[in-house]
Amino acid sequence: MDRVPILKIGDILLVSIQIDMEDQVALQLQEDLAERIVATGCHGVVIDISALDIVDSFVGRTLATIASISRVLDAETVVVGMRPAVAITLVELGLSLPGIRTALNVELGMELLARARDEGVNEDGDAEDEPGTPAVPAP
Amino acid sequence: MDRVPILKIGDILLVSIQIDMEDQVALQLQEDLAERIVATGCHGVVIDISALDIVDSFVGRTLATIASISRVLDAETVVVGMRPAVAITLVELGLSLPGIRTALNVELGMELLARARDEGVNEDGDAEDEPGTPAVPAP
Repeated sequence: MDRVPILKIGDILLVSIQIDMEDQVALQLQEDLAERIVATGCHGVVIDISALDIVDSFVGRTLATIASISRVLDAETVVVGMRPAVAITLVELGLSLPGIRTALNVELGMELLARARDEGVNEDGDAEDEPGTPAVPAP
Repeated sequence: MDRVPILKIGDILLVSIQIDMEDQVALQLQEDLAERIVATGCHGVVIDISALDIVDSFVGRTLATIASISRVLDAETVVVGMRPAVAITLVELGLSLPGIRTALNVELGMELLARARDEGVNEDGDAEDEPGTPAVPAP
């Protein structure tokens, strides 16, 4: 019954991963996080991995899946706190975590999300005039 | 080498306890936290125990020790996220966590610390006039 707690701080959900990411834990986290995003309407997810000594391909894939699920639910994900040794090993393994935003620590991650949100709002405002997304007239 | 990560968010240090509080883990956390309080100058510590199924007398004592160490270093501690079943068991065991502030979740804990800080500043202002703390004249 190992479960990673999800903490809500303002508009952001914070996850501090400290236990080994086994299959069941990863699936449970994905499910819990999706439910919390919907329940709270949060627009950002910060995942702290400063406690992890090793990030293998499974953990990398789990993080990517979480980021994708969050994106579908209109929340941006930032992975923070990666140790230098973990970064080196990841790249040596050929894993560069594509599609995952990173920041040095929780504070910088939260700033990044706040900035991304502001820019996103502006982009949405401009998007109305783009030719690629024409308004569908009601039948 | 199990270590509980300490996350800095603004003026607050956040600790999410997810692993069993064995002797070594508890000692390491006390040491890390004291060092981080001094290094960052933070005035608040929030300890989330929502992942804990059981809080026994050792964990209770550890939390009390952390709160005392923090207080000596001019930081207030709030324990948050206690499960209802944990609260019931604690009181049944005769442990009511004296000297530890609690709040329902991280957000309310951070609010409590912000409020306590504001009041503390005012109290300090008044304290100068109190008879119990006379200024010691330089020899």
